[in-house]
Amino acid sequence: MSLLTPRKGASARVPLEPIAGNGLLHRRALLGGGIAFAGAMTSTASLTSAAAEPLADEPWSLEQGATTPALQVPSRFEKHVVRTLTNPKGEPRNQHARTPHHLLNGMITPNSLHFSINHSGLPDIDPDKHRLVIHGLVKQPLEFTLEALSRYPMVSRMTFVECGGNSAPMFSNEPLQATAQGLHGLCSCAEWTGVPLATLFDEAGVDPKAKWFIAEGADSLALSRSVPIKKAMDDAMIALYQNGERLMPGNGYPMRLLLPGYEGNMNVKFLRRLKLVEEPAMSYYEGRTYSQILPDGKAYRFYFLQEVKSFITNPSFGHSLKGPGFYEISGIAYAGTGRIGKVMVSADGGKSWGRAALQEPVQSKAFTRFRMPWRWDGQPVVLQSRAWDEAGNVQPTRAEFVALRGQTKSPPNILAFPNQHYNSITSWGIDSNGEIKHVYA
Amino acid sequence: MSLLTPRKGASARVPLEPIAGNGLLHRRALLGGGIAFAGAMTSTASLTSAAAEPLADEPWSLEQGATTPALQVPSRFEKHVVRTLTNPKGEPRNQHARTPHHLLNGMITPNSLHFSINHSGLPDIDPDKHRLVIHGLVKQPLEFTLEALSRYPMVSRMTFVECGGNSAPMFSNEPLQATAQGLHGLCSCAEWTGVPLATLFDEAGVDPKAKWFIAEGADSLALSRSVPIKKAMDDAMIALYQNGERLMPGNGYPMRLLLPGYEGNMNVKFLRRLKLVEEPAMSYYEGRTYSQILPDGKAYRFYFLQEVKSFITNPSFGHSLKGPGFYEISGIAYAGTGRIGKVMVSADGGKSWGRAALQEPVQSKAFTRFRMPWRWDGQPVVLQSRAWDEAGNVQPTRAEFVALRGQTKSPPNILAFPNQHYNSITSWGIDSNGEIKHVYA
Repeated sequence: MSLLTPRKGASARVPLEPIAGNGLLHRRALLGGGIAFAGAMTSTASLTSAAAEPLADEPWSLEQGATTPALQVPSRFEKHVVRTLTNPKGEPRNQHARTPHHLLNGMITPNSLHFSINHSGLPDIDPDKHRLVIHGLVKQPLEFTLEALSRYPMVSRMTFVECGGNSAPMFSNEPLQATAQGLHGLCSCAEWTGVPLATLFDEAGVDPKAKWFIAEGADSLALSRSVPIKKAMDDAMIALYQNGERLMPGNGYPMRLLLPGYEGNMNVKFLRRLKLVEEPAMSYYEGRTYSQILPDGKAYRFYFLQEVKSFITNPSFGHSLKGPGFYEISGIAYAGTGRIGKVMVSADGGKSWGRAALQEPVQSKAFTRFRMPWRWDGQPVVLQSRAWDEAGNVQPTRAEFVALRGQTKSPPNILAFPNQHYNSITSWGIDSNGEIKHVYA
Repeated sequence: MSLLTPRKGASARVPLEPIAGNGLLHRRALLGGGIAFAGAMTSTASLTSAAAEPLADEPWSLEQGATTPALQVPSRFEKHVVRTLTNPKGEPRNQHARTPHHLLNGMITPNSLHFSINHSGLPDIDPDKHRLVIHGLVKQPLEFTLEALSRYPMVSRMTFVECGGNSAPMFSNEPLQATAQGLHGLCSCAEWTGVPLATLFDEAGVDPKAKWFIAEGADSLALSRSVPIKKAMDDAMIALYQNGERLMPGNGYPMRLLLPGYEGNMNVKFLRRLKLVEEPAMSYYEGRTYSQILPDGKAYRFYFLQEVKSFITNPSFGHSLKGPGFYEISGIAYAGTGRIGKVMVSADGGKSWGRAALQEPVQSKAFTRFRMPWRWDGQPVVLQSRAWDEAGNVQPTRAEFVALRGQTKSPPNILAFPNQHYNSITSWGIDSNGEIKHVYA
């Protein structure tokens, strides 16, 4: 039984022993039995029943509220919950928008906050004029309108998309002081609905000589990437819907390639062409940008998978703790290889670890929210999380990762920067005032 | 194995026999093997490879696109995908906003499109000033700020919320010509994250005499409803997040009561008070509005559960079929009692039925997307869906439902209208031109 399944009836009160250093508690504390959360209450918690009858009324309890809009938007008190932009004036270069993980909870990223990277802005595509072509080494080339494609059998799946360059600030020699949004904001998770690519390839008839396909977008960059045919026949999808509605313009409207678990750049947006070929095209984004340089000067040629990873979002940089007592530590874990198997959390910089609860349903190649109960005694701590996928692959320690993949030297050449596929541990150092810093530990 | 799990490798081609009248196919057709989808293709499908090199460029392929915004919004080509409003000027009465199910796919409702009903507008609540009080028959009354509440252990769950009055137009003597939005738009499904109510009640210490609690909202209506304590100790939640971000103002910002499977009105928004008591309060919305009048003049006293239900969203009223050939029929099924067990689909008005595929993961008290492959021969058909929950409870036929619950007579008195908890079948009649009407069958 998952510890995060809503329980039936009151749980038995059981003594809650610490499970690891600096106040980590067994995850059954999440059920509430046997733990006093008094530290989580406000100082005004000693309310009397008399004081509650009647309750004091704030202005919003005394007047008619605002009119319901056709499209709901967040409260004006949530104006800080936005994507951060690297190119807010739309200059002719990349535009990044990062998801504010430190302000979210759960596993779904709302569409307004899904990360996006666009290389030549957001194309204003008329869906009735857009076409998708499948050609090259096929028996029967095919061309689809959006309407025709919408008649095919569809599937839905919740899956994350992550830029291969997400977490690039973690390659810095010194820990950059940034939120989980700033460090890891180029990944998000949504329910995607669309047509399995295998269905379309079956209909076109794949020539046995075809081993790859080249996916091309309709934006003015015409971004193209090569993908093994095998991925098409496994779980690739032409995605048409994102969390129930049509794709956001920044996420590929009206259709994108979805390759669950593969680096974001390969999930070609505004998809207009799939050409089946014998060899990869070695396009710009695979021959240059996404060929990660290693410390020995060699480069990875194709590094498609987003490997197992996790980070704590709460508490994290940008928050502060308001005194000792109970807190829930929570974060996100995910793996391009499949389901998350377990997540361990440390409050003493990795000396001791306790197992976190995983929020059901734990889905393959999707965000999994983990939760760990914690009683802070007010002393300095270092919080970390470390995830395993279901096959046992583990998120590397920072020492292991840097040894293999390098760290940023004083900048000689942008090409020589290691800056991709960081999946090691993130550490949050909390001092006795409750202030939080990003640290390497 | 779910038929909607992305497959590994190409499936074997198998002959696809019709499984029920008027062209319903076995759900394995969704895998693509053995079926020619030619009818789904455009007339320009006979593209040659030569024509594809290079592709014709539309204007959006030739110029820099728009600038990335901090909050993403849908394409201007999706301006019709909005909630429909019953009170767009915010006059001093109810405001309903309905989810456009006929334009969505998957199981998540995006926050912008989640249905809402508000009785005195959207209160502009300052979350730092909002308080939640638990009092009455408890050992220790408690008062929470949002910040204090956020330190408690949380859970996430995907669940639908449905107004008890959803589908009221289905009580009409004659079938109203309206979309799935107009008929069934007062239900939606989201991932909700918050604090289990049992945790808070345990901390307050429930007096054994307490059998109910009264939940009250902070809007100027101060809507209040009585809820059995048992539900609090089962799966009730104080929800703080909706699809990852803070609640929408129309859905209860900054916190709401979430009672999975219970009628929407009980899921009190802007929650400010939970008072534990011995007897229900018989408040306005339980003593009057939500006491459904039956044909014999008696009334249901407490009708909390939203029972098993389904409807087809695609194709449905508002769409039209563009000629014979393959289509995917899909829709939504859900039950306040638990998981969906199966969904059957008919294309001949209920004479014969085929079993639909259910999209995994099938979650308790959540929307489940069902899908049925269909080859339309161009003749008139009547499409229906019928759902069972995992315990075997079945969605009633319309004849069964009307016999038990009544139908609208010529309006003598609004109170005498049967208009709540409709969970019978919806029928879409399609003529030989592909035009779709709402019919009773």
